[in-house]
Amino acid sequence: MIGHGFMGATHSQGWRTAPHVFDLPADIEMTVVVGRNATATADAAAKWGWAESATDWREVIARDDIDLVDIVTPGDSHAEIAIAALEAGKHVLCEKPLANTVDEAEAMADAAARAAARGIRAMVGFTYRRVPAVTFLRDLIAEGVVGTVQQVRAAYRQDWLVDPQMPLAWRLQKEHAGSGALGDIGAHIIDMTQFVTGQTVDAVSGTIDTIVKERPLLGSGSGLSGVAAEGYGEVTVDDVAIFTGRLSSGALVSFEATRFATGRKNALTLEVSGDMGALAFDLEDLNSLRFYDRTTPDDRQGFTKILVTEARHPYVAAWWPPGHMLGYEHGFSHQVVDFVTAVAEGSDPHPSFAEGLSVQRVLDAVERSAENESSWVRVAVSVPAST
Amino acid sequence: MIGHGFMGATHSQGWRTAPHVFDLPADIEMTVVVGRNATATADAAAKWGWAESATDWREVIARDDIDLVDIVTPGDSHAEIAIAALEAGKHVLCEKPLANTVDEAEAMADAAARAAARGIRAMVGFTYRRVPAVTFLRDLIAEGVVGTVQQVRAAYRQDWLVDPQMPLAWRLQKEHAGSGALGDIGAHIIDMTQFVTGQTVDAVSGTIDTIVKERPLLGSGSGLSGVAAEGYGEVTVDDVAIFTGRLSSGALVSFEATRFATGRKNALTLEVSGDMGALAFDLEDLNSLRFYDRTTPDDRQGFTKILVTEARHPYVAAWWPPGHMLGYEHGFSHQVVDFVTAVAEGSDPHPSFAEGLSVQRVLDAVERSAENESSWVRVAVSVPAST
Amino acid sequence: MIGHGFMGATHSQGWRTAPHVFDLPADIEMTVVVGRNATATADAAAKWGWAESATDWREVIARDDIDLVDIVTPGDSHAEIAIAALEAGKHVLCEKPLANTVDEAEAMADAAARAAARGIRAMVGFTYRRVPAVTFLRDLIAEGVVGTVQQVRAAYRQDWLVDPQMPLAWRLQKEHAGSGALGDIGAHIIDMTQFVTGQTVDAVSGTIDTIVKERPLLGSGSGLSGVAAEGYGEVTVDDVAIFTGRLSSGALVSFEATRFATGRKNALTLEVSGDMGALAFDLEDLNSLRFYDRTTPDDRQGFTKILVTEARHPYVAAWWPPGHMLGYEHGFSHQVVDFVTAVAEGSDPHPSFAEGLSVQRVLDAVERSAENESSWVRVAVSVPAST
Amino acid sequence: MIGHGFMGATHSQGWRTAPHVFDLPADIEMTVVVGRNATATADAAAKWGWAESATDWREVIARDDIDLVDIVTPGDSHAEIAIAALEAGKHVLCEKPLANTVDEAEAMADAAARAAARGIRAMVGFTYRRVPAVTFLRDLIAEGVVGTVQQVRAAYRQDWLVDPQMPLAWRLQKEHAGSGALGDIGAHIIDMTQFVTGQTVDAVSGTIDTIVKERPLLGSGSGLSGVAAEGYGEVTVDDVAIFTGRLSSGALVSFEATRFATGRKNALTLEVSGDMGALAFDLEDLNSLRFYDRTTPDDRQGFTKILVTEARHPYVAAWWPPGHMLGYEHGFSHQVVDFVTAVAEGSDPHPSFAEGLSVQRVLDAVERSAENESSWVRVAVSVPAST
Repeated sequence: MIGHGFMGATHSQGWRTAPHVFDLPADIEMTVVVGRNATATADAAAKWGWAESATDWREVIARDDIDLVDIVTPGDSHAEIAIAALEAGKHVLCEKPLANTVDEAEAMADAAARAAARGIRAMVGFTYRRVPAVTFLRDLIAEGVVGTVQQVRAAYRQDWLVDPQMPLAWRLQKEHAGSGALGDIGAHIIDMTQFVTGQTVDAVSGTIDTIVKERPLLGSGSGLSGVAAEGYGEVTVDDVAIFTGRLSSGALVSFEATRFATGRKNALTLEVSGDMGALAFDLEDLNSLRFYDRTTPDDRQGFTKILVTEARHPYVAAWWPPGHMLGYEHGFSHQVVDFVTAVAEGSDPHPSFAEGLSVQRVLDAVERSAENESSWVRVAVSVPAST
Repeated sequence: MIGHGFMGATHSQGWRTAPHVFDLPADIEMTVVVGRNATATADAAAKWGWAESATDWREVIARDDIDLVDIVTPGDSHAEIAIAALEAGKHVLCEKPLANTVDEAEAMADAAARAAARGIRAMVGFTYRRVPAVTFLRDLIAEGVVGTVQQVRAAYRQDWLVDPQMPLAWRLQKEHAGSGALGDIGAHIIDMTQFVTGQTVDAVSGTIDTIVKERPLLGSGSGLSGVAAEGYGEVTVDDVAIFTGRLSSGALVSFEATRFATGRKNALTLEVSGDMGALAFDLEDLNSLRFYDRTTPDDRQGFTKILVTEARHPYVAAWWPPGHMLGYEHGFSHQVVDFVTAVAEGSDPHPSFAEGLSVQRVLDAVERSAENESSWVRVAVSVPAST
Repeated sequence: MIGHGFMGATHSQGWRTAPHVFDLPADIEMTVVVGRNATATADAAAKWGWAESATDWREVIARDDIDLVDIVTPGDSHAEIAIAALEAGKHVLCEKPLANTVDEAEAMADAAARAAARGIRAMVGFTYRRVPAVTFLRDLIAEGVVGTVQQVRAAYRQDWLVDPQMPLAWRLQKEHAGSGALGDIGAHIIDMTQFVTGQTVDAVSGTIDTIVKERPLLGSGSGLSGVAAEGYGEVTVDDVAIFTGRLSSGALVSFEATRFATGRKNALTLEVSGDMGALAFDLEDLNSLRFYDRTTPDDRQGFTKILVTEARHPYVAAWWPPGHMLGYEHGFSHQVVDFVTAVAEGSDPHPSFAEGLSVQRVLDAVERSAENESSWVRVAVSVPAST
Repeated sequence: MIGHGFMGATHSQGWRTAPHVFDLPADIEMTVVVGRNATATADAAAKWGWAESATDWREVIARDDIDLVDIVTPGDSHAEIAIAALEAGKHVLCEKPLANTVDEAEAMADAAARAAARGIRAMVGFTYRRVPAVTFLRDLIAEGVVGTVQQVRAAYRQDWLVDPQMPLAWRLQKEHAGSGALGDIGAHIIDMTQFVTGQTVDAVSGTIDTIVKERPLLGSGSGLSGVAAEGYGEVTVDDVAIFTGRLSSGALVSFEATRFATGRKNALTLEVSGDMGALAFDLEDLNSLRFYDRTTPDDRQGFTKILVTEARHPYVAAWWPPGHMLGYEHGFSHQVVDFVTAVAEGSDPHPSFAEGLSVQRVLDAVERSAENESSWVRVAVSVPAST
């Protein structure tokens, strides 16, 4: 695993837990964590259950005893590491967003396509696809229960930037994060929309804005840890992105990604409206989904709150009995299950790097629309050059 | 009262009920209902408690025993009737939207301004302002409980057009309705946003779309009554409008008005996010609002569901004890209370025709933006020419 | 109408509104309100739309121009007035509870049975039966959608007594109110349980308690109006009643009636669990009910929130379009519709006095159980002596 | 760990995860799982991450390399194993209920008291105490935010027995399970009520019932696996228990435990009402609690939904950022943290065996009340004989 921030903790939980809950087709050895700071990396390795730690990712991906590389660094280093790892013949799981730019993402998708030809697999970590309720929602749409999708409403709302004294972390600096609310959480709702509908977002019209334009600087090396600020610095990413998308079928999608929705902590909400029914999901109530069925008698129609904790629901049989709730981290175990299974079976895992690139192109189109008075912009077609 | 459709029933309920529940500063006599079809109008008058019926609105507004005219006809006739009534010295309550075009609305606002100089009052019927929870939400924002408004999220979602066999009613024809979802329900969320924030929507970027483009025609004179269709006709108004607005403070608003949100019957939802707190409202749960207070200790923050049925809440003392729910129609009684009070006290009622014009200008700007690739369009300044 | 307290206002709203919304089989004239205090009664008559006021109910029920008597006085006077009115040949609508004692209720049920033989109708005012969602819930059970009822959970929770300084109102004095939470709100959940299941509560085991045993006295004539207290007096009714009932089928019901559920204003909740499904209702969300259908595939089962505002739902067609909410008071219009229809058609209205007596007998059994260490007590059979 | 059923899986997840998420004061080695069937036990050990498996628990508790024994067998074997383990000087974590009878539980509490004198710790596994929202609810009550507790409402409702063809599992046989809904899930709400209020349930009046009295028999060795039934057998435990308790303060508690609440999967709900506020919890929404604060202005009171996912909340800092949900299993990690910490620090863990005995005595009193026409029964005082 390259990187050991917050995503290092969640990925470690997935690698550590999946083999003890699911029947995996291969054994997992948690070999080594890589980070710049040797002490911090060693601590992380010890805490999270990895056998070793290291500081040079190039050395690690050259090792013969490493089959798979999990990348959880900030987005600006994804392309370099992922491409090198794929070229070294390692299967790669890369945390989302795939990259900070479309160019990087294209290079990664190309590398993944070349690697696939050699039996090497690559997957990008949109783990919310693997919340059982989201997977089941996708299955229900594929089964046709909502009929033709006529509109979609997707939002991801948080509030951790409402306080203007929240310091200028790396996530607020374009050179590290690439993008703000748009790239961080907007990416999730774009991917989820494309995933559940089976369609692509082909054009967008969008607005992005930075509500608090300056924030306290922190001294070098400090995080959110309360170290005294050294003046103020400019926030170079967006705080909020509101955009409209058009799916390949022509249906409209309203998107909203914001870090200023006071009181909303992690409110990813999705509603898909079709001519036969509708499905709705809310990440703050992640064990359930709501299904409206227009084919039942009209005096008893309504949104049914389905508790997605039955053994028949995706991934659930391996866990607990009905009504015993799962949480945020379970998606990371499911990601391990699916990636390891794909590697073992020799099949292409999803979301692929091409799918990650597709999200990146939508993000890029939103930014270009925002720069051009929010005029509609077509999203480039997402076919990797090498295929 | 001119007109006797659905809004005739709700306005009648308001006129009939308000004097028996509230202490009004003037007596109300429900004198006459006007409609084109003499029999239907007489039936409506008898059913709803009006003393007489008539077929010529010009004669009625000329009568000396009429002090106040309530207009509930489709939007294309509002301007002519309202201006004539104001010029005849009658106080005018006009159902929303104020008019079908900005030109008409400007003429009406001018007429209202001239009439006001003579002590004649005019009000437009955005009754949702008078749902106690909405009035209280506005009061709380004015009091400062959410601090500086940083973003707003407003939607009005219905689903009565999901069925493609729903016939081509007048509301789906541009010549009668002026606009579709945008003008009908989008108008409500624009007015409510401006009302609760005390700000204006100064610019917009929007998209409108017609999802089902042809619908069954009905024979002349038929409504939604199931009379056999005579072929198909074109839907000439929008089914869905998604737009972003910028408030006078610079804050962004996401707007969505749709008649294709499967399973959503009357889902007007509003959320105002500020740097000290947030407030949220849902018309399908209209006796309550949700308040998030960032000034409380952070381990006990959350959205508080306030049941707006206490005697201290707006309008409630006249009704029932705490926890005894009010419904949709109560806003129409409150509208009567406020308008009659303004007339009796000689004060200007709200929403004024100028406020109705302001909404109309936003609607117009959305349409122009939609025609121009969704580019941002500034909303014309809403000062009546005559003031 | 005899009496002019809170229930006078709600009943007046029903009498005044029903003819203008529904097509009634008879005309309604709101003739006279009767009360002890001439001025207050005249004020009430004027405010609520009654033609006259009077102070002697005996004179009023002797009048030839009175066909129907609506009794909204405290429970200790119900029996005398209702029996006299029935014997005078007047149809009688009597607010719940039917009486303060089983003896009185038996005499009333006897009088009603004798009157029915002469074509005179009597009904008791359990208006919550006429909330559309409750009526519809009953219809669904009768249709068999929940299968065999296996258990029921019914509660009515309020919090207006939590404040120990709330004064000693008549509702807290046994001589006037007969009972406390048990008789006032417990009566509602007993009636609703019997109504929706079509069964009787045949035995009970219960506990009643008075949490705050002394409260501030008020001077003569004062209500809850904040007049200075004159010392403290004993609360002679219960604050809370928790009891278990056994239905005629053998199924258990858990009942709870309390005025000490802090934060719960008017929380009447009911859940009926059967072997094929379940139905749940909450008066604080009175436009909807929840339906769980065990006959659907188990991966999409869940509680469906049915918005009971469709034209097909009971009483709704006369009101507003789908999604336009009704409130507490609408049940009083529906009561008028049903009673006037029964009178006009010559059919027996429900809930009958015999049904009101049945509730009274359950209340009495709960009190006897509570006095006997909560041992199970059989409810007397509810057949009026004269039938 | 002795036993390897469903609770073996959850306890293993706790042992495996806690050291990697929390900073524990001692290292954990998952040494050996014990079960009767050697193969099944070996499989469980391999799957769940235990180093060895064994079939004789007596041999295992005699081993020098074992410091702590975790008992997850059915209740009928708890006493024998726990007492032997404590006497062998092992710290003991015993899954709830402590035992199947009061006699056994008393012997266990005695053994724990004797062991404590030698520095050996014993804890019983009411893990719901360790859901962060429940722990926080307890803390808030202790802090005084609800004032004096005036009543409590506690229910645990499931529906897995609604289907009459659900076979006669060991949980439905008195000789193995000791009790039905009462002992299995009723135990949880008794413990939680005592835990959060800091009071004891001193007397009860209760009813228990078996709704489906006969169920399909399964051949020896089969579980719920669909093996063909061999006729029908009698259900010897209760399906539903409804009881009223009186706390040491005199306040009443309504309890309901049922396996026949159609559509309710794991609905443990608790509401504590005090003179200053109220707190409510629902296990199906386990990341939040609701707090009603009567000390705020009455026009903005309401239930606040607190998302208990902030770093300040109990146990949460070790997990994920705000709004990232935890699930059912996290309580088992928290249990490990608390027990290991108590052992390392030499303090007495909670819930102690004495607390487990206390629950057992309440359960026993409910059964005796039910056998005696539901008359009130005092709960025996819970002081272990040896202290």
